Amino acid sequence: MVPRYSRPAMAEIWSPETRYRIWFEIEALAAEAMAEIGTIPASAAISIRQGGAPRVAAMGPADVERIDEIERVTRHDVIAFLTWLGEGIGEDARYMHQGLTSSDVLDTCLAVQMTRAADLLIADVEAVMAALRARAMEHKFTPTIGRSHGIHAEPTSFGLKLAGHYCEFARNRERLIAARAEVATCAISGPVGTFASVDPRVEAHVAKSLGLAIEPVSTQVIPRDRHAAFFATLAVVAGAIERLATEVRHLQRSEVREAEEFFHAGQKGSSSMPHKRNPVLSENITGLARLVRGYAMPALENITLWHERDISHSSVERVIGPDATIALDFALMRLAGMMEKLTVYPVRMTENLEGLGGVVHSQKVLLALTQAGLSREDSYAAVQQAAMATWLKLGQPDVKSFAENLLARPEVAAVMDAATLSRVMDPQLDFRHVETIFARVFGTA
Amino acid sequence: MVPRYSRPAMAEIWSPETRYRIWFEIEALAAEAMAEIGTIPASAAISIRQGGAPRVAAMGPADVERIDEIERVTRHDVIAFLTWLGEGIGEDARYMHQGLTSSDVLDTCLAVQMTRAADLLIADVEAVMAALRARAMEHKFTPTIGRSHGIHAEPTSFGLKLAGHYCEFARNRERLIAARAEVATCAISGPVGTFASVDPRVEAHVAKSLGLAIEPVSTQVIPRDRHAAFFATLAVVAGAIERLATEVRHLQRSEVREAEEFFHAGQKGSSSMPHKRNPVLSENITGLARLVRGYAMPALENITLWHERDISHSSVERVIGPDATIALDFALMRLAGMMEKLTVYPVRMTENLEGLGGVVHSQKVLLALTQAGLSREDSYAAVQQAAMATWLKLGQPDVKSFAENLLARPEVAAVMDAATLSRVMDPQLDFRHVETIFARVFGTA
Amino acid sequence: MVPRYSRPAMAEIWSPETRYRIWFEIEALAAEAMAEIGTIPASAAISIRQGGAPRVAAMGPADVERIDEIERVTRHDVIAFLTWLGEGIGEDARYMHQGLTSSDVLDTCLAVQMTRAADLLIADVEAVMAALRARAMEHKFTPTIGRSHGIHAEPTSFGLKLAGHYCEFARNRERLIAARAEVATCAISGPVGTFASVDPRVEAHVAKSLGLAIEPVSTQVIPRDRHAAFFATLAVVAGAIERLATEVRHLQRSEVREAEEFFHAGQKGSSSMPHKRNPVLSENITGLARLVRGYAMPALENITLWHERDISHSSVERVIGPDATIALDFALMRLAGMMEKLTVYPVRMTENLEGLGGVVHSQKVLLALTQAGLSREDSYAAVQQAAMATWLKLGQPDVKSFAENLLARPEVAAVMDAATLSRVMDPQLDFRHVETIFARVFGTA
Amino acid sequence: MVPRYSRPAMAEIWSPETRYRIWFEIEALAAEAMAEIGTIPASAAISIRQGGAPRVAAMGPADVERIDEIERVTRHDVIAFLTWLGEGIGEDARYMHQGLTSSDVLDTCLAVQMTRAADLLIADVEAVMAALRARAMEHKFTPTIGRSHGIHAEPTSFGLKLAGHYCEFARNRERLIAARAEVATCAISGPVGTFASVDPRVEAHVAKSLGLAIEPVSTQVIPRDRHAAFFATLAVVAGAIERLATEVRHLQRSEVREAEEFFHAGQKGSSSMPHKRNPVLSENITGLARLVRGYAMPALENITLWHERDISHSSVERVIGPDATIALDFALMRLAGMMEKLTVYPVRMTENLEGLGGVVHSQKVLLALTQAGLSREDSYAAVQQAAMATWLKLGQPDVKSFAENLLARPEVAAVMDAATLSRVMDPQLDFRHVETIFARVFGTA
Repeated sequence: MVPRYSRPAMAEIWSPETRYRIWFEIEALAAEAMAEIGTIPASAAISIRQGGAPRVAAMGPADVERIDEIERVTRHDVIAFLTWLGEGIGEDARYMHQGLTSSDVLDTCLAVQMTRAADLLIADVEAVMAALRARAMEHKFTPTIGRSHGIHAEPTSFGLKLAGHYCEFARNRERLIAARAEVATCAISGPVGTFASVDPRVEAHVAKSLGLAIEPVSTQVIPRDRHAAFFATLAVVAGAIERLATEVRHLQRSEVREAEEFFHAGQKGSSSMPHKRNPVLSENITGLARLVRGYAMPALENITLWHERDISHSSVERVIGPDATIALDFALMRLAGMMEKLTVYPVRMTENLEGLGGVVHSQKVLLALTQAGLSREDSYAAVQQAAMATWLKLGQPDVKSFAENLLARPEVAAVMDAATLSRVMDPQLDFRHVETIFARVFGTA
Repeated sequence: MVPRYSRPAMAEIWSPETRYRIWFEIEALAAEAMAEIGTIPASAAISIRQGGAPRVAAMGPADVERIDEIERVTRHDVIAFLTWLGEGIGEDARYMHQGLTSSDVLDTCLAVQMTRAADLLIADVEAVMAALRARAMEHKFTPTIGRSHGIHAEPTSFGLKLAGHYCEFARNRERLIAARAEVATCAISGPVGTFASVDPRVEAHVAKSLGLAIEPVSTQVIPRDRHAAFFATLAVVAGAIERLATEVRHLQRSEVREAEEFFHAGQKGSSSMPHKRNPVLSENITGLARLVRGYAMPALENITLWHERDISHSSVERVIGPDATIALDFALMRLAGMMEKLTVYPVRMTENLEGLGGVVHSQKVLLALTQAGLSREDSYAAVQQAAMATWLKLGQPDVKSFAENLLARPEVAAVMDAATLSRVMDPQLDFRHVETIFARVFGTA
Repeated sequence: MVPRYSRPAMAEIWSPETRYRIWFEIEALAAEAMAEIGTIPASAAISIRQGGAPRVAAMGPADVERIDEIERVTRHDVIAFLTWLGEGIGEDARYMHQGLTSSDVLDTCLAVQMTRAADLLIADVEAVMAALRARAMEHKFTPTIGRSHGIHAEPTSFGLKLAGHYCEFARNRERLIAARAEVATCAISGPVGTFASVDPRVEAHVAKSLGLAIEPVSTQVIPRDRHAAFFATLAVVAGAIERLATEVRHLQRSEVREAEEFFHAGQKGSSSMPHKRNPVLSENITGLARLVRGYAMPALENITLWHERDISHSSVERVIGPDATIALDFALMRLAGMMEKLTVYPVRMTENLEGLGGVVHSQKVLLALTQAGLSREDSYAAVQQAAMATWLKLGQPDVKSFAENLLARPEVAAVMDAATLSRVMDPQLDFRHVETIFARVFGTA
Repeated sequence: MVPRYSRPAMAEIWSPETRYRIWFEIEALAAEAMAEIGTIPASAAISIRQGGAPRVAAMGPADVERIDEIERVTRHDVIAFLTWLGEGIGEDARYMHQGLTSSDVLDTCLAVQMTRAADLLIADVEAVMAALRARAMEHKFTPTIGRSHGIHAEPTSFGLKLAGHYCEFARNRERLIAARAEVATCAISGPVGTFASVDPRVEAHVAKSLGLAIEPVSTQVIPRDRHAAFFATLAVVAGAIERLATEVRHLQRSEVREAEEFFHAGQKGSSSMPHKRNPVLSENITGLARLVRGYAMPALENITLWHERDISHSSVERVIGPDATIALDFALMRLAGMMEKLTVYPVRMTENLEGLGGVVHSQKVLLALTQAGLSREDSYAAVQQAAMATWLKLGQPDVKSFAENLLARPEVAAVMDAATLSRVMDPQLDFRHVETIFARVFGTA
């Protein structure tokens, strides 16, 4: 992932140094288990740990380059690493990797990296949730228009809007926890996964030490449906980011102006139009959401490996392992900050809410008319015509409000007077169940 | 979905009649809850149930056409249905749908349809699992070559191969159960989801009666991350189908011939080449897996609706709702039947296993040499050169077996005699942990 | 594709009857070429044509069912058809399909269907172009605000907006013509494409008669990169639909109200809120665009067939062949009608354009100040601060216009007076090159 | 893209330094055009060129870091660059970028980068074509079995296989040329694309100097359907790579062994199994093909920008611009080298071809029997049964060849003797049109 969209903690998980350190840990743990079982001398396991630990702890770019150099000859990354590592261990290095295949190391390492990445992403989602919760509480009763199809529908509260997004991120938190569990398995089962050359107890020890489950049947590789489910989950999370970013983009539109991304001192909205204040963060993460969605496709195609394994998944994962998690991490944290600092304009919300002459209360009127005895069809016709009479004249000097147009209709006047109509259209009615919904979402204090 | 790939039980879930019947049930339940609360007269709820129930029970193509006709005028499907339904209820029809929006009905109906579809898919996966389990037990110790990169690696058992696929379908069963729970929610919350015109108790009653959870925050619609997660899960299941189908396609290759799809009497493999017996079922479901994968993309894009809702998701779901579930149902059941009846050729498996002159035992030899005192590097070189000497002469008259080539090398002969080597290369060694793995997968009897 | 989104002309291309008629035409043409060459008796070709032509011309659902029945025994669709066809030809039927494979018939038929579908789609795009051209001419100088990031940027004309979309559809017309050429090839080359059993002159004859090119190397099948390129093109066209639909959805927003989909007499915008007039057509085709985009993925995966061919592409194409073309046809024609009848509100456009107190002219002022001698940095700061002073007070009683705020700044007043500033902000300046752009797009009269 | 899959020439196109140099070129050319028209002083254009040229020519990492630093304050990349550039120009820097928007610079720069990338990709495809052509000529008449469904079908030549892939790459070359033309446009049209502040002659000059066409209607941005079409084309090319890689993977299977990737001295196929020689290059590029396919999705979603533009496309393009082109460049060149050096085993091809006892000649026999007077149905039955009698006993001691089984059938013996049958089954018959096909593909010498 380009540095512009990389945060250090997530990028670090995918660095060569981190990868080699995890490889070493797997090899050392496996050796210790083998020593315990008696497959290799106890002293060898100690040599491996003591010789290797400082070597990987101290490793830097020069070591990475040295390993790359060995790989250019052997054309095999794990062999290259083991050769480099062996230089620090001596004789006993020959006891390393006994009966293992590269995949045992690579796939278990990937499991460690992906679970670490999942942990960061879960924390990111929690940061978004915290921001949404705080803003939802703040605006629990801030009236704003609810919109379906981009058209004013009925009043709602801004806090309720945010509570809906909160719920979606809460669901995504659960999905990420499940996705983490999907990939948190260890395979140390040797060629084609038969344990012919490595005892299952070695796997059990490595798995337990690394906080992983054992893979019930690994066929030299951990099956890729796990990884596909993981990346598909990231794509679902990306959708939540895009939905909220789209909401902000809409609210910041010049004609709407109900909310705005925080605008920094010194910021320039446009090189040519100094008046601009653009929702660039929301747009940026909308694009990142598209990327993360795109990464799910090759992950899904990766499931179909040939027989016990082929290595076509590897080039995909070298790229999307880091890219999808880094992009999502960046987008989530950008979103969290954006929501924390979002400038909200309640006055403007009220102006917009009332901007259509009251037609947004049409359903409450429809219901009241029906209950007052008009047929559903007649009620609908009366309300629709009164609403259109207001709507289509908006901005003209002779526009009448929705209430006026309603009362001017004999069939309405026959069953309802102005005072009743006013009570029917009271916006407070729209909030009567906000507390109920908040209790569903955030629990009751 | 085209009839060719549709099974009746799944197709029925998506028929207009089924949809209308669920719509009616939702309206009738809602009316009953409202009567209980006192929003509408108790007699009205009874009229709705008694007038509507026989009408939808008896509905047929002519009714569907009549509703379509009304929709061509009103341009609104739920209103068209309610008009048609009202004709059988009379006066009290005006108490139907009080304070509801179309989405309350449509989205809750979709939840019912998707959970029913999920139930079928779970049963399908269980059928695949049953077939795989039976064949895995049958071939628990049938020796076959394990292949990595399409190249012979080490011996494994055919049952173990199948056990791996069994595990993947078992994981998919769990994923489908989770996906079912994702979409099993009910929303009866009125315009923009505020409950301004419908009491939350109505939602609670409908949800409970239909076996659904309530949606904590519905914004007129049930949020589409749920549906996206559902369709993404179907894509992961499709991957498992493709992986197993690909295995069968490989095994049936002319040069491999280890297994074959059942060939029916009267079947013609090719219009021009009478000798052909092709793995056409596997290829067919490979294509269906691609389709199901493709359907996940629009589902993911559907998450980002505008504000409280727009209706862009609807045209997508009218197509992929049925198409993805019908295609997957068909593919799973075709796969289950295919695996049940798969013709397996154990003799051929053994021939292939031994076809490379014994080089497939190279890792066991490598390990034994290392343990006998040779360095890892020297062992690797000796084994690789002996193996290549066999491999590259395969089919030639003077080819020597891997064992012969090994013993001809002084550094090998120095540490190992023919009898030892023979013991090292015993294929039974490869099966020593098959029981362990089967116990992991199927439990212990 | 569901009937709701199917137009008869496109659906007809994909009906079983059409398919069988094309199959017959290919078989008859091939027989005629073989008779010409002398491979089969001339009388046989005549029998095939004369016996088969009336049979396929008259075919109906019962024949389709009869063929399906035969296929249930032979499990081969082309053999089933030939058997049915042969019943009408007699003895000479044995000369049909000599040396051909099913794929010769199937793939050439698909080429015919796809080119016909492409012809309809090209006509559809031309209908969209005609609507856009007419509306662009009508609104060539209708002022409206140009928006970047959803924020008011600078004035433009509504006709210019439409001209941009016109260009995109013109490009898509070219792309569809290219995509049509991609798939307009014929393969009659026999098993694995060697012409071992069928003379290349047969292919040449069939190709020429059907208006197709010959496929240079068919390996029993026409290579699927052609079809992938075709479906990928449909996905690009779908993007254009979604972009224009999104524009309309934005313009119809309650706060914007610059344009509106035509609202039919009798139409109900919402079952619960009678005041609603929603951009449901635009939203509908936005969803269809997602579907068409999704269909490109399995088409791309179809490229990788095994060796000379496998049949995994077939189940994909049976579905997306019709579904992608039918959905796109429907969406394009819905879009064309929608743009023809779009209700445009020029008065509202002007109101919105002037709604921000003149700040939308900031770049013209910036430029003028720079030219009047202020440094770029100072000009930018002055303009940005004057613009923000207006913007942030919008709706408040003491708001000053952008011009007032500018002239209140000494560094501005020092280089520019009110009259000059007024000239600089003249909106007509924004239209000075509209004619130039229209000439680029539509040519000069 | 990770360094492992990056070749320097392509990576260089996407470096910050290259980008800034192109930005400068655009600004300098625009200034020169403005000076020519008289918008800015002639001396200013000279200052800009003379002050800026050495500054960008000499720029290195420290300059890039300095620009990043400015951007952290201004939050605007183009303004940051102009500020840095201005430091080397002095007073006249204020004449730079007059009336332009950032997008004029960014989008025109992207056009330059994408056309350069396209040029490299076209050359890459030509390298693949050259390798395929050479190997096709070499193996024009090397007999090998053609396979449909992975099952032996009829003989073909290995050269003919390669010729088919050559054709696909030739088509992709044409597609890349078209895709290059799609994105080779220049936009210098100012805010919302009206040319209100920049004369169209400036655009004409910059376009011509950079070898680009002008964009007929740019709405501040170059419309993204162009880029979508470009990336979709890359996805189609990726499919060709995967198809050929899959062919090689199949040919290298242990049971097939007809071809093999070149195996380097010192290469280790497996860390644990020294006998392995795996088609790892093919598998690697199969994965890269998946990646490139995945990148097409966000590019397609990028089409739908809001109104005149939003910036959601930008984060997508910052990633997939380099990643898709770099991955495809790497995969193509790896493929070219792989095909050049592919080890081909003609002896093994012949062994496989004859491995099924002659049944692969079934269609020629079927045809001959029909022509000798047997009905098609009887011929098919005879041939199918004779073929199965051979096939199902393969590997058993009493297996009879296909010819023997045929002649043992009275209905066959009645119309055909052994000598005739032998002539009918002559493999040379399968090659009679190879020259014709080669002439179609490569032209005639």
